[in-house]
Amino acid sequence: MGDPHAIAKAFQEHYYSTFDSNRQALSGLYKDDAYLTFEGQTQQGCQAIMQKLSSLPFQQVKHHIASTDAQPSASGGLNVFVTGQILTEGESNPLKFSQMFHLAAQGSSFVITNDIFRLNYG
Amino acid sequence: MGDPHAIAKAFQEHYYSTFDSNRQALSGLYKDDAYLTFEGQTQQGCQAIMQKLSSLPFQQVKHHIASTDAQPSASGGLNVFVTGQILTEGESNPLKFSQMFHLAAQGSSFVITNDIFRLNYG
Repeated sequence: MGDPHAIAKAFQEHYYSTFDSNRQALSGLYKDDAYLTFEGQTQQGCQAIMQKLSSLPFQQVKHHIASTDAQPSASGGLNVFVTGQILTEGESNPLKFSQMFHLAAQGSSFVITNDIFRLNYG
Repeated sequence: MGDPHAIAKAFQEHYYSTFDSNRQALSGLYKDDAYLTFEGQTQQGCQAIMQKLSSLPFQQVKHHIASTDAQPSASGGLNVFVTGQILTEGESNPLKFSQMFHLAAQGSSFVITNDIFRLNYG
């Protein structure tokens, strides 16, 4: 595996720019049996995850990233931990969020096996 | 593996009550080659992690947990994701934090292989 931080940074930039510009294209990033837990609600499977992400109550959204951390995982993959702010359409105040991903190696690339998202209210 | 949420909840309660009452005893919870990334600084190994946790610039600390999420991991372990507030001695305002753990099964119990902590300022 290459440098965990470089991989995590490239993944983070790709993930959130795709989320903010063409959310449907995220389907290519999730493993078939991946998990998403979004604000406490868990979906399993790429199809269920895409349904959840498509049904979020906003169309326009912009993520601003404050930090990206990375660690090798026990299974030869990568843990990625992101904090930042999310600004959705019609809102003037961004909300803080944090999100973790586990990425598994697949050929020369990586796919998301685990994704947990939480807003940090306050 | 039992119910991921029940295991994560029990782990979370044990971890933070130990952190707040007897930080040195956390050494029993980390695997020998575990990773800790605390505010962007990474340590590997239980001994280095305990040195880092012992050298944090506060003695008294209280964690208040807002959410605990859990997902099975690709390697048969557990991803745990926690958000909450941390109040350190001499401070009147708690700070928001988020933290992820990966737990690996070890006999009938679990040990921490990965720990990433971030404050969510603002």
